[in-house]
Amino acid sequence: MKKANKKVSAAIIVIGNEILSGRTQDVNVITISNWLNDLGIKLEEVRIIPDKEDSIVKTVNEIRRKFNYIFTTGGIGPTHDDITSQSISKAFNLSYIYHKEAFTILKKYYGEKKFNKGRKKMAKLPKNALLIYNPSSAAPGFVIDNVHCLPGVPSILKSMLGGLKNRVIGGRKIFSETLNLITVESEIAFPLQKVQNKFNDTEIGSYPFFNKGKIGVSIVIRSTEKELIKKSSKEILRFVKKRSIKIIKRN
Amino acid sequence: MKKANKKVSAAIIVIGNEILSGRTQDVNVITISNWLNDLGIKLEEVRIIPDKEDSIVKTVNEIRRKFNYIFTTGGIGPTHDDITSQSISKAFNLSYIYHKEAFTILKKYYGEKKFNKGRKKMAKLPKNALLIYNPSSAAPGFVIDNVHCLPGVPSILKSMLGGLKNRVIGGRKIFSETLNLITVESEIAFPLQKVQNKFNDTEIGSYPFFNKGKIGVSIVIRSTEKELIKKSSKEILRFVKKRSIKIIKRN
Repeated sequence: MKKANKKVSAAIIVIGNEILSGRTQDVNVITISNWLNDLGIKLEEVRIIPDKEDSIVKTVNEIRRKFNYIFTTGGIGPTHDDITSQSISKAFNLSYIYHKEAFTILKKYYGEKKFNKGRKKMAKLPKNALLIYNPSSAAPGFVIDNVHCLPGVPSILKSMLGGLKNRVIGGRKIFSETLNLITVESEIAFPLQKVQNKFNDTEIGSYPFFNKGKIGVSIVIRSTEKELIKKSSKEILRFVKKRSIKIIKRN
Repeated sequence: MKKANKKVSAAIIVIGNEILSGRTQDVNVITISNWLNDLGIKLEEVRIIPDKEDSIVKTVNEIRRKFNYIFTTGGIGPTHDDITSQSISKAFNLSYIYHKEAFTILKKYYGEKKFNKGRKKMAKLPKNALLIYNPSSAAPGFVIDNVHCLPGVPSILKSMLGGLKNRVIGGRKIFSETLNLITVESEIAFPLQKVQNKFNDTEIGSYPFFNKGKIGVSIVIRSTEKELIKKSSKEILRFVKKRSIKIIKRN
């Protein structure tokens, strides 16, 4: 697959009362984000919203034109609180109907006798949806325009990302380098700012850490240009050395 | 503190490239959400946005009137990528200046000699900001109108929430009950929907789980009315019993 030589952006919409209520720790954002990194796509925004039709419709329509790819997680199961498919239908003004292929997949998976009302619901999708196949538990995700709807169960979501590889086309890969320093942020803020100002096309982040009794700062340099990472890393190491700051490995 | 007998809403803005890039797993949302639950405040939306001034200004101004309380996490440290204070100043059209009390606190904490440029930056806040004291590492958070700005480091954030208790006034407490069933969602989707339809003022969620080789579904009933939880739980247990579905404890 040819990669576009440009910046490609994405946003995630996490659909789930259970995340907002504090019952469940979301782990899908980090999974999708790392998968996008490998494809050369930058995750630019995440929204976590409730299982409410108007919230989903409004959020999808508000952001789908702002980013190249939208991913939703959650709400495509068989229960009453799974309303992603009907809400996406509404957002795109498409009818919400049985999808022939999805129906066939699910019927085969469950067997005719056990293919009850709840299971049939998972075959109802926006008209003309493209399926995202589910190697774990049959019920497919789907794509409408640039909106990719995935399940909320982390292991199932992970198993489905592979099937998207030829549909989601990335741009320039984003590289990164991390320097772990035994110091505090306020000791290096000023020289670090100078390096950032000099290298506009890198994104330099500074993150305090507490590791086995050690206090430190991770400096993360990200860029599509390896050469720029190398150059800015070199300048950071210069002031690090000058101030006798220790560098360590972390894992 | 008297509690208002009404629904009180909140939203969180997570400010941090490190969350979007997949480098760091956010854990602050679940911390704040559970703290809000105890106060009787419902978390209605979360946005994760980059360390970019225009994103912060736009997001804050877009949502601060929609919810009773806004909490931001991240971006109040000393480095160049910490731009929450200046961005909030801009969002509210306030000058971004040294805050007398914050300056005094930080100067005392670091000592005059070590109170360098980076550390002084943490005393620069929107004009007339109210401080949120920091028992861990001195650098305060702050409040402007209904926007409460907290740090991104989870342990420090946790230590600061206590100090907000008399400022953030909750509504009716949201209670919840969980039933863990050894079944699959599609087996119970239809009768569960009927219970949800009957009890509009409860929020019934259905969440598959995989636990020590067991596949099951957690049914979570949430409401401000304990009595309604009891009634809807009773109806769920009725169809659970009828279908000989096993109930288990989870931890």
